[in-house]
Amino acid sequence: MQLVLGCDHAAFNEKEALKSFLKALGHDVLDVGTHSSERCDYPDFAQIAVKEIHNKKCLGILLCGSGIGISMAANRFSDIRAALCRSAKEAELSRQHNDANVLCLGARINSIDELKEITSAWLSSSFEGGRHSDRVAKFNQWGTKL
Amino acid sequence: MQLVLGCDHAAFNEKEALKSFLKALGHDVLDVGTHSSERCDYPDFAQIAVKEIHNKKCLGILLCGSGIGISMAANRFSDIRAALCRSAKEAELSRQHNDANVLCLGARINSIDELKEITSAWLSSSFEGGRHSDRVAKFNQWGTKL
Repeated sequence: MQLVLGCDHAAFNEKEALKSFLKALGHDVLDVGTHSSERCDYPDFAQIAVKEIHNKKCLGILLCGSGIGISMAANRFSDIRAALCRSAKEAELSRQHNDANVLCLGARINSIDELKEITSAWLSSSFEGGRHSDRVAKFNQWGTKL
Repeated sequence: MQLVLGCDHAAFNEKEALKSFLKALGHDVLDVGTHSSERCDYPDFAQIAVKEIHNKKCLGILLCGSGIGISMAANRFSDIRAALCRSAKEAELSRQHNDANVLCLGARINSIDELKEITSAWLSSSFEGGRHSDRVAKFNQWGTKL
């Protein structure tokens, strides 16, 4: 599966660990950075990542310290449905009910093992459609166009 | 404090409990609905709530089953910084680092006691400014204007 991966400095190590994990599972990972622990701004990497996700019509995973800032920034854009998840259960719900195309994670909230578990649950779940489609359609086009 | 409260059917009972809790603390709560457990769509209440939050320049609290859908919809709008929080720690971080003006909660994820604890922590925390201001400024105007 094609996946876009992005983060800020606070999540650099966790992004690297997740990249290795995803590549070992056979996924095609585009890492848009950041590429070091040097201080940077999460909105910059959210913006770069969502453009790639939109262009490639693929899924993406974004990380910052709490996951909160990068989820706010990503959700500003139409067609992006970014779900901040702390557990495998939430990750499944975000695919089943919200058709999330971006998973947001907090490097300072969950351990690397937990981040891998959440990511695996997210990638193996799918959208249920039905009444959830109508709800997603109501807000999906709101926001800045990509 | 003036607070706007909104939810979908899945969080109706929890919204009512939180409303009583907030009123008992002396807050001025504007409840924009939903007003029953009858099935409805979370984007409708996200949109009504963020308009009130923007007009009144106040804080808001939004709930749905997981909190994920309503946080996606609310963050579509410029000037809205909606933080999905599962713990008091995350609630504090969202005020300190992201200047969150909307707290999003999941009625099916946290107990009512936990929702109260998260809300109290959120309301008693404040923005740290500094480098966090620059980051918030980068994405705050993205999205649909209110």
